Amino acid sequence: MLKTLIALTAALLTLVAGIGTGRASGIEISHFVLANGLEVVVIPDHRAPVVTHMLWYKVGSADETPGKSGLAHFLEHLMFKGTAKNPAGRFSQVVATVGGQENAFTSSDYTGFFQRVPREQLPTMMGFEADRMTGLVLTDDVVRPELNVVLEEQNMRVANNPGTRLGEQMEAALYLNHPYGRPVIGWRHEIEQLTREDALDFYRRFYTPNNAILVVAGDATPDWVRTLAQDTYGRVPRVAEIKPRMRPQEPVPEAARTVTLSDPRVTQPSVSRYYLVPSSTSARPGESEALEVLAHILGRGSNSRLYHTLVFSKGIAINAGASYDGTAVDATHLSVYATPKPSVSLQQLEEAVDGVLAEVIENGVTSEELTRSQNRMIADAIYANDSQRMMAQWYGAALATGASVDDVRAWPERIRAVDQASVREAARRWLDKRRSVTGYLVKDARSEEKRS
Amino acid sequence: MLKTLIALTAALLTLVAGIGTGRASGIEISHFVLANGLEVVVIPDHRAPVVTHMLWYKVGSADETPGKSGLAHFLEHLMFKGTAKNPAGRFSQVVATVGGQENAFTSSDYTGFFQRVPREQLPTMMGFEADRMTGLVLTDDVVRPELNVVLEEQNMRVANNPGTRLGEQMEAALYLNHPYGRPVIGWRHEIEQLTREDALDFYRRFYTPNNAILVVAGDATPDWVRTLAQDTYGRVPRVAEIKPRMRPQEPVPEAARTVTLSDPRVTQPSVSRYYLVPSSTSARPGESEALEVLAHILGRGSNSRLYHTLVFSKGIAINAGASYDGTAVDATHLSVYATPKPSVSLQQLEEAVDGVLAEVIENGVTSEELTRSQNRMIADAIYANDSQRMMAQWYGAALATGASVDDVRAWPERIRAVDQASVREAARRWLDKRRSVTGYLVKDARSEEKRS
Repeated sequence: MLKTLIALTAALLTLVAGIGTGRASGIEISHFVLANGLEVVVIPDHRAPVVTHMLWYKVGSADETPGKSGLAHFLEHLMFKGTAKNPAGRFSQVVATVGGQENAFTSSDYTGFFQRVPREQLPTMMGFEADRMTGLVLTDDVVRPELNVVLEEQNMRVANNPGTRLGEQMEAALYLNHPYGRPVIGWRHEIEQLTREDALDFYRRFYTPNNAILVVAGDATPDWVRTLAQDTYGRVPRVAEIKPRMRPQEPVPEAARTVTLSDPRVTQPSVSRYYLVPSSTSARPGESEALEVLAHILGRGSNSRLYHTLVFSKGIAINAGASYDGTAVDATHLSVYATPKPSVSLQQLEEAVDGVLAEVIENGVTSEELTRSQNRMIADAIYANDSQRMMAQWYGAALATGASVDDVRAWPERIRAVDQASVREAARRWLDKRRSVTGYLVKDARSEEKRS
Repeated sequence: MLKTLIALTAALLTLVAGIGTGRASGIEISHFVLANGLEVVVIPDHRAPVVTHMLWYKVGSADETPGKSGLAHFLEHLMFKGTAKNPAGRFSQVVATVGGQENAFTSSDYTGFFQRVPREQLPTMMGFEADRMTGLVLTDDVVRPELNVVLEEQNMRVANNPGTRLGEQMEAALYLNHPYGRPVIGWRHEIEQLTREDALDFYRRFYTPNNAILVVAGDATPDWVRTLAQDTYGRVPRVAEIKPRMRPQEPVPEAARTVTLSDPRVTQPSVSRYYLVPSSTSARPGESEALEVLAHILGRGSNSRLYHTLVFSKGIAINAGASYDGTAVDATHLSVYATPKPSVSLQQLEEAVDGVLAEVIENGVTSEELTRSQNRMIADAIYANDSQRMMAQWYGAALATGASVDDVRAWPERIRAVDQASVREAARRWLDKRRSVTGYLVKDARSEEKRS
């Protein structure tokens, strides 16, 4: 149940509430805080009698003690192991019985739990979720087998996937000091050592109403949600005080890095690069928005600079793109990537990528590109209103990483305010190779035997 | 007063006590522990009426809390700021008045204080050193100016030295998880934030007799040292319990990395590589010794493989070598380096280095090379008996990183036991590029303006 929500790019982390769109009235987002510190966001959507119920904790892998990597994610798994009131399996069984869906996810900055159910089941979901906020019961009988589940998950997702392993290694090389350098799922040798006591310590430190955000999207009114939340979550006492998240920060980057992962299982070589850049939370005003637009112009879709130049004009790549996810507490990365045609070397492809970047650094972007990207980004955000789950996800992720409801609501305006000068300035300032790690994924037929 | 003692290679960390040498009687090293947990080592040397007095704490930069890098070294500086009994400056003044020398040093694993004085001053030195073990008094008046001294030291040693900066970046890229990845002197942005409270917390946690080693070398008998130590250090109570040093360990390395540092101040480009390898403490029996011999054959002196091949045979380098420092608690690195002749590219030079390494991995070393290196290493160790300070340093560093007096004493025997098969096995196992970071130091005339 691990999801690094990076696939949901910040271009879509947004949401819109009618601002800058044709829907003058927009969606009325409600936001309030219970007496025990629990934040609540209600996103009405009355098209169908269903609700999306999400509980977000402001704790992720970057909050783990060094040497205990994987703990945030392991605890996410263990949250399904039952309480004194609700034995293991009952919560999930009720969700299944009513035809609902459920999931859970962990990132560097947050951990979340999700159910989508018929509206009349909302009180039940809240009851279960509030119960396990502080009532989790863990015995070695359930902890040890779950550790094997997590190790198998690591095996499937990471160990047997050269591309994912390269990504892990690139993150580790990008962050010299910040805990974002360690994998959300953890380093395998550390996962193996995690214990019931580790999980309970972490749980008691971070799972408390004053460190959580409830997001309800769907067929529910703010008043109803408030009443239900007070009857369930409102009864959970604060069990810990939460300090601001002060993670070790990065030194000024000053040396370009590369990482090469050779593996016989690689079927498609590729080159990718991460640049260390500010997140929407850590950036100065306008900086993160300029990075979003820059990444979009560089690498979103077939009209983008990278795709158009490498795939169409030069014909040396079968794919190319760029992305930026600003949804993070601390410095994140802007990434570019390209996949070569069979006869093209990674070096040749990288030189072409560098050429595209150099051109934008030198001359900026055109006003047509800027307007087209802005329109597309804002339109995507509006379309996303259609998805109840996405809406809940975006508000939850934003609030869990230090943004406000208003920040999310004003996103289209902020994107619209980006001008050519700020995109060029973002390119000049942040696309500096000293801030970067370049990754090479290479097929190596000799790799297995070399390992000895 | 920062010394990363890496220049004193483990080839010299040894010492000998006559074993395997012509001096049948050898030096009688005494080793005992006081009731409060202080370890004492006495190394007799009666050639002159002087003593070397060293106090080693088993704490270094790898024991710092993340986000507080530089704290171990900062505290080393602050240890000169006086106690209730001895105001700032008095200790150093006495050393100077009696014609003595003093110094202090910090590494990843230990912090040490050193004086060399006439023998009759030993009781005084012990009195001062024991007093500041727990009696340090710090006020903001002395802490703040000292922080500027440390920042200026960082400026001189690191910020203005491209080679040192590259070394820092390579360490950071080599260690994905272990705190050895951070500089002993600290990241500048974190040094700037260190406070009096940080220093005192660290001091109270680690400066206690049961976390220290007293080494006295020189014109002193074990009985006299014991009596003096009991009268001074023996009166210092344990102020903290010390847990075993459990640092986050490295995952299995799986991707070759590079780091490029371009700077207009580079006068001499170079290529270097670090391989992650076991330390003498973390290695299995014989492994560290084989690595020492391997590094010696590869790169110690003009007869070594790298120097001979690159400088003499191919004529493409002005210098080349290898080194291995096994004196560490956790995994350390074996390094190789080469400096090109003016017309030679770093790429060409690196390929030649790789050729030399591949040859050793493939075919091992000759018995002549092995015997020559062993003889030279052991002879160097015996010559080192001549230096009182070196002897004290080696025992102190070894004991502070988890070795025993017997380990040090038996070093020549252990080196003598290395055979051709184990050297080849070490080369095959550890000179795997996936375990490595390659660093390029490059002169870049455009660097300043590119930074914007």
